[in-house]
Amino acid sequence: MQAVTFSLSDWMKPRLQQIEFALENWIDAEAPAELGKAMRYAVLDGGKRLRPLLVLAAAQAVGLQDASSEVAALRAACAIELIHAYSLVHDDMPCMDNDVLRRGKPTVHVQFGQAQALLAGDGLQALAFELMTPQDGSVPPSVQATLVGLLSRAAGYKGMAGGQAIDLASVGLALTEDQLRKMHRLKTGALLLCSVQMGVVVAGRVETAAMLALSRFGEVLGLAFQVVDDILDVTSDSATLGKTAGKDGAADKPTYVALMGLAQAQAFACELRAQALAALDESGLSAVQTQPLRALADMVIQRDN
Amino acid sequence: MQAVTFSLSDWMKPRLQQIEFALENWIDAEAPAELGKAMRYAVLDGGKRLRPLLVLAAAQAVGLQDASSEVAALRAACAIELIHAYSLVHDDMPCMDNDVLRRGKPTVHVQFGQAQALLAGDGLQALAFELMTPQDGSVPPSVQATLVGLLSRAAGYKGMAGGQAIDLASVGLALTEDQLRKMHRLKTGALLLCSVQMGVVVAGRVETAAMLALSRFGEVLGLAFQVVDDILDVTSDSATLGKTAGKDGAADKPTYVALMGLAQAQAFACELRAQALAALDESGLSAVQTQPLRALADMVIQRDN
Repeated sequence: MQAVTFSLSDWMKPRLQQIEFALENWIDAEAPAELGKAMRYAVLDGGKRLRPLLVLAAAQAVGLQDASSEVAALRAACAIELIHAYSLVHDDMPCMDNDVLRRGKPTVHVQFGQAQALLAGDGLQALAFELMTPQDGSVPPSVQATLVGLLSRAAGYKGMAGGQAIDLASVGLALTEDQLRKMHRLKTGALLLCSVQMGVVVAGRVETAAMLALSRFGEVLGLAFQVVDDILDVTSDSATLGKTAGKDGAADKPTYVALMGLAQAQAFACELRAQALAALDESGLSAVQTQPLRALADMVIQRDN
Repeated sequence: MQAVTFSLSDWMKPRLQQIEFALENWIDAEAPAELGKAMRYAVLDGGKRLRPLLVLAAAQAVGLQDASSEVAALRAACAIELIHAYSLVHDDMPCMDNDVLRRGKPTVHVQFGQAQALLAGDGLQALAFELMTPQDGSVPPSVQATLVGLLSRAAGYKGMAGGQAIDLASVGLALTEDQLRKMHRLKTGALLLCSVQMGVVVAGRVETAAMLALSRFGEVLGLAFQVVDDILDVTSDSATLGKTAGKDGAADKPTYVALMGLAQAQAFACELRAQALAALDESGLSAVQTQPLRALADMVIQRDN
């Protein structure tokens, strides 16, 4: 294979600007009372935007067809970020993880009160589905329906919310690797997989070998993400993470590090990286097409926060 | 106009059975850990199902075309009930209204704990959008997209969540009638209006005079619903209401009774009933077609709980 010159940061820069600009525009500051402010605080000026970038990278890998696909890609990208952001707002609340620091700032309930945090999360979830159903003819109804179908399942009890329920029920329990893997497949994996799949959908390539291969990529990446998260929880500090370090161990939550030890967990993360890249190799897409996905996978696995 | 023999309870009985059966089936008891149980507890065996009945009555008024419309109507009916149910779960939480009694039973957070109540509400919202996007070809994608578009807007910051934010910000304030009306138009009115509009959409009659007239009916009904709610809060008791009576007055919340006095609020409810029925008369639909909507409006305005 020929060497491909590719700079992830050059690829990301215009896309991050596009995502931030769209989120700015689509979360209405004019929402009643404090709600608009709380929703914007929860989303803007902070996240790494991994899920939106995965949507755009997957869409690019299979090939965007036209302007309508680009609109759909950006809407799907922002929608999944809103779902992710709402889950963080609710997760941080006192009745859940009771966390006061997120992305280096006070969490939403600390800043706006619990009632407003609850409402802001609820409003962000609804807004995600609103973003995917524009009423201006810019996105074909069949694409809208498929995107909503994917994201609602990934966010709900078959996905993220279900994983959080297992997490709640698992504190202080010694899970097997299978149980731990199932929890994370739902809790964090479902949204990461959904990001990649939505990218394929907006490009109109649902029934292809590429969809299967990229879905496999998304699944492995989701697992790798969580293993690395568990590693960082013990090896990093709060300032680097932008959130409270060491909290999973302190809360007696099951983690990959607790299950297999630090060195073994690090080896497992490397193995998953190899599996993710192998899935891309088997996709039938060229190295140039999959380069952004490849680089995002490396970013996920080699990150320090 | 000829006298029409119509029994609302005869009309409702098979439809309520259909709704309960569908909700039973669609809220999976197999959802992880306690989540499935909490979601089912929040929805099953309790509600009046006003919003689902409005969807079915509106669909019937404009005329269901085929089996696909019937599937879509039932899915939309259940979806809006899930949104309503989730809003009650979150509203009852200690950081919001802190209520312990709902539909004559302990509220979800009392029964399952706050973390599970938070997750159950989140899961119900996602499930609403999942229900409207079946992947078996039973509902045309264009209908799916339109339904999601309506419900996401009615549930989010432009609707229900926005109204709740105004409500939160209004405790202890003397609102004008305009401000009170705006709050309720969003908080309860948006979902009632959406119920009627979704009924028209599943029947494939979006661009008709009937849509305009039924939307007007839905708007007025939403307002009437809230005025009656405020009246019942002072005239009824907790046993009849199935929830805590007198709590709005106790919490110093603005109400129509506080604003205009009891007798005046009762007269206003009668006036709104007349407006709602007038909207139906102007719809171009026959008295037979609109009979269920007419009877539901009477039920809303003459209810004692």
